[in-house]
Amino acid sequence: MYAIGERINGMFTSVKEAIQTKNPEAIHELAKKQLAAGANCLDVNVGPAAADAVTAMGWLVKAIREVTDAPLAIDTTKPDVMRKGLELAGPGSVINSTKGQQDQLDIFVSMAVEYDATLIALTIDENGIPRDANGRAEIALRVVAAAMEQGLEPQRLMIDAVILPVNVTQPTPSHVLETIRNVKVLSDPPPKTVLGLSNVSQSTQLRELLNRTYLVMALAAGLDAAIVDVLDTELMDAMIASEVLLNRAVYADDFLKAYRA
Amino acid sequence: MYAIGERINGMFTSVKEAIQTKNPEAIHELAKKQLAAGANCLDVNVGPAAADAVTAMGWLVKAIREVTDAPLAIDTTKPDVMRKGLELAGPGSVINSTKGQQDQLDIFVSMAVEYDATLIALTIDENGIPRDANGRAEIALRVVAAAMEQGLEPQRLMIDAVILPVNVTQPTPSHVLETIRNVKVLSDPPPKTVLGLSNVSQSTQLRELLNRTYLVMALAAGLDAAIVDVLDTELMDAMIASEVLLNRAVYADDFLKAYRA
Repeated sequence: MYAIGERINGMFTSVKEAIQTKNPEAIHELAKKQLAAGANCLDVNVGPAAADAVTAMGWLVKAIREVTDAPLAIDTTKPDVMRKGLELAGPGSVINSTKGQQDQLDIFVSMAVEYDATLIALTIDENGIPRDANGRAEIALRVVAAAMEQGLEPQRLMIDAVILPVNVTQPTPSHVLETIRNVKVLSDPPPKTVLGLSNVSQSTQLRELLNRTYLVMALAAGLDAAIVDVLDTELMDAMIASEVLLNRAVYADDFLKAYRA
Repeated sequence: MYAIGERINGMFTSVKEAIQTKNPEAIHELAKKQLAAGANCLDVNVGPAAADAVTAMGWLVKAIREVTDAPLAIDTTKPDVMRKGLELAGPGSVINSTKGQQDQLDIFVSMAVEYDATLIALTIDENGIPRDANGRAEIALRVVAAAMEQGLEPQRLMIDAVILPVNVTQPTPSHVLETIRNVKVLSDPPPKTVLGLSNVSQSTQLRELLNRTYLVMALAAGLDAAIVDVLDTELMDAMIASEVLLNRAVYADDFLKAYRA
């Protein structure tokens, strides 16, 4: 699984303070810890409170680049903030994210082509989040078509079927699993799939258990990537065990250690 | 999930000793502990070492019946041992198990009808364990046909797609997941599905992690029942979280406690 570490996000107090005081050390620390824990890519989100989001994103990406060349997922809905992040992060970045309506696709697909980036596309459009798996697949198909029209290959797309908190809508986790399976037959080669995992457990009391249980289900459905808390060791253990059981990682007696090495 | 507790098995030293010394207390204890931990049914296996298996099965079932009326899964390949267990356990028992060749089906399907029992059928036949999901589904279809011929409805069947240790054959866990999904379209109503879960981790070093990770995948594929170590709390937590995420159990803030109550 392509693991995108979620912790460099202005929603967390330490990151918010680091941005406000321009103190890069907390950011260096979070970058290094997540990479050591198995992150393949680091999500970068300035948070809702950032006064000048373009400047904040520029500062954050520069701070991270002081300690690593790992791919970054620039996490914003604002095109100017996205552009700033992509410019400084360099090629091989991830755009997180576009929605499925045409005006957004026009902007972000061309940005993905321009900056040699992978594009995360949410199955949301002007009508909101579809109520079932079919609605989600329809938007995914529209995204694939828009990408191909602008010359972005499907493998450079990551479809995010938008998981919602299980305590808000209990049928949604099943719809999202069905969407992950369906996306795999949308095109040949198919787009990748991704989840913002922690959302499934938002404001529940047993978050870690729900997160790791749902991740296992999604991986068995064919999930390629996830934005996760890579510092949650039990979550990563469940991910690695899944990769072994699905024959995507070779079995070894200590497969946790083997995978991490 | 219909949880069949695996612990009353002569493979375990305490059970073997209890049978040999005709000491029912260890058996009472195991029965009560497993039911308290969430078992819906108790597997009963005299183990490979029992000298007179018919007598041992009779003694074991009587010992369990001194403390509970819960359904029992009589676990033997021998028709005479099975008959003894079913006679003493009473209606609503589970036959664990038949294989898929005709001579075995003739014996055990009619026993299921005679004793008002549910029949677990392994997707194994005279040619052994099929190498892929299609081979497993073929045997399952033969089992369903044999059952219907003798008047045993598909819902009284539990197809066990035979999981093998992941360190012996790494493609098998995926084949079994595919079989679980395929069995659901074999008939209408479909047969139930079951797994002897612990086999997936046989002689591996991270057994509990593999067991609970695979159980979550199998439940997401539609698994109805499993023979498991119900005393493994983390396994049962993963099972309950799966039921909530798959919308088969109602969400509550403390859904673990709610499910257990």
